Amino acid sequence: MTAFVSIAAFEAALADLRDLDSDAQADARMRQSELTKPAGSLGRLEDLAIFFAGWQRRARPRIDRARAAIFAGNHGITIHGVSAFPASVTAQMVANFASGGAAINALAGAAGLELTVVALDLDRPTADFTVVPALHEAECLDALNRGAAVIEADLDLIVLGEMGIGNSTAAAALCARSFGGDAAAWVGPGTGVDGHGVARKAAVVDRAIAFHADAPTSAFETLRRVGGRETAAIAGAIVRARQLGVPVLLDGFICGAALAPLAADNPTIAAHCIAGHCSAEPGHRHLLDLLGLEPLLRLDMRLGEGSGAAVAANIIRSALAAHDQMATFAEAQVSASL
Amino acid sequence: MTAFVSIAAFEAALADLRDLDSDAQADARMRQSELTKPAGSLGRLEDLAIFFAGWQRRARPRIDRARAAIFAGNHGITIHGVSAFPASVTAQMVANFASGGAAINALAGAAGLELTVVALDLDRPTADFTVVPALHEAECLDALNRGAAVIEADLDLIVLGEMGIGNSTAAAALCARSFGGDAAAWVGPGTGVDGHGVARKAAVVDRAIAFHADAPTSAFETLRRVGGRETAAIAGAIVRARQLGVPVLLDGFICGAALAPLAADNPTIAAHCIAGHCSAEPGHRHLLDLLGLEPLLRLDMRLGEGSGAAVAANIIRSALAAHDQMATFAEAQVSASL
Repeated sequence: MTAFVSIAAFEAALADLRDLDSDAQADARMRQSELTKPAGSLGRLEDLAIFFAGWQRRARPRIDRARAAIFAGNHGITIHGVSAFPASVTAQMVANFASGGAAINALAGAAGLELTVVALDLDRPTADFTVVPALHEAECLDALNRGAAVIEADLDLIVLGEMGIGNSTAAAALCARSFGGDAAAWVGPGTGVDGHGVARKAAVVDRAIAFHADAPTSAFETLRRVGGRETAAIAGAIVRARQLGVPVLLDGFICGAALAPLAADNPTIAAHCIAGHCSAEPGHRHLLDLLGLEPLLRLDMRLGEGSGAAVAANIIRSALAAHDQMATFAEAQVSASL
Repeated sequence: MTAFVSIAAFEAALADLRDLDSDAQADARMRQSELTKPAGSLGRLEDLAIFFAGWQRRARPRIDRARAAIFAGNHGITIHGVSAFPASVTAQMVANFASGGAAINALAGAAGLELTVVALDLDRPTADFTVVPALHEAECLDALNRGAAVIEADLDLIVLGEMGIGNSTAAAALCARSFGGDAAAWVGPGTGVDGHGVARKAAVVDRAIAFHADAPTSAFETLRRVGGRETAAIAGAIVRARQLGVPVLLDGFICGAALAPLAADNPTIAAHCIAGHCSAEPGHRHLLDLLGLEPLLRLDMRLGEGSGAAVAANIIRSALAAHDQMATFAEAQVSASL
């Protein structure tokens, strides 16, 4: 599939979203009712199987090929002391991904996920978005397309994750600009700042929202003005995944924040997305409510890297295994009575 | 290891529980602090790795061999209309387990678990425990030992589950006799009764508690009087697993109820147990609070069969993979600053 050739092409794609296959979904729902268990007793495993049937457009969905794509970017706002770690850690962690030593390497392996890491111009941090837009238009469009490029039509699932020192502040700004609310409601300790750090993050977000208050509020402009390359790439990947019918499994707060501007423009964009994990970051729960997503896991994780979503991918595998492999009442000669 | 040769031998085992290896646990905690992630950012995955280090007595715990053991029993109290399904379904589902068509077959396969199904004298239901003890002493001791027999010393994890039409009523009685509380707080829809059915279940539990009120309250007597063969077997498996240093992953409400009489006698029995899933059954949340267990998953499942625990086993595999495979800050040359 060709790239988003222009901002207008991206906006047109977001405005015209493909729907799921309701016939495949109905067939999957019927099959669930015939499997050897009381109706509804597998809870969310049943919902997941029906969800995948709809988006994969087949009554017996499966995961033969799944990829975790992790996008890394650097942020000009780190000059304001919004992170517990120096910006140089982003590149160090990308090297760690490449050598197989990070959490996502182990967790993707445990879940049977291919791992693709995309380092987005780490030597060119975004601009300080409290005083200018974070990205030029061409830079933002390029990031969207680099995200879209990880989606291949034969993927049965895409897991999205990120790495970027400072990006929980950019994520808070994306949420605040997409859905409103005080900066204080969207900032949190991230990967480890203390109360003073959280206050600095809120101040940065407040200044950013005020500075860009009169600018257009389209998804593209929000991603460009207060986001980062990795959040723009995740947004591009989400839209392309929808075009190609690939279900999306989101990691934590930053991934949800990348979806927020898209959902503010077109709320149905969240329909092919699953929230893998509710982060310990306080704004995430509220964000998921606004997106209409119920997370699969709450394990007090707050790492990013796609780590929570990679763990959640195992639950999807379990759900599809039960859906595909269980016998029906008729096959097993079990009484379905009552 | 020999069987529990007598009730006294079982009670002695429960009274004298082996503790974890605190040195291995300290080593694992140290390792977690050196891995390439902010301290604590893997949340419960870190706790799981440290838990397994303590009980497996090695700083780098692993799961090479894991088994799901599912115990099935029949219940005399089904004559009171406490289940949506006829008692004959227990044997039908055991046949379904044997032919590979049940949810647990698919879910155990997806989690890499050996599956052992133990059908406990299905042609001899327990007695109606509203008027006599459910089991004779010898029957209960036999069930404890058949549970203990599934634990082998080289297992790295045991997943416990059950099947038995009527057993959510027995489970409610076990909870009420172990921890007190109104029957109404411990009964629920199970695999599918309506409000009238729930009221019938509460009445059965109330009558049972009253009938056995003056009998001894030891774990053995509670398991024997108001439990079933499958809950006694699970209790025996839990105690034997502790003796052999095998961590236990519990499924839903009925498994927790099998642990309840043991915990009422010796609260430290729960220390080597993990709650895999919080069931949709309303009493389970309260039971887990009393046992001091925080479930890994809440997926609105209410099937039993070890299904929720089998899904949770994947989370443990992920946790141990991260613990074992991640690089340290020194190995990866990543700044650990702040």
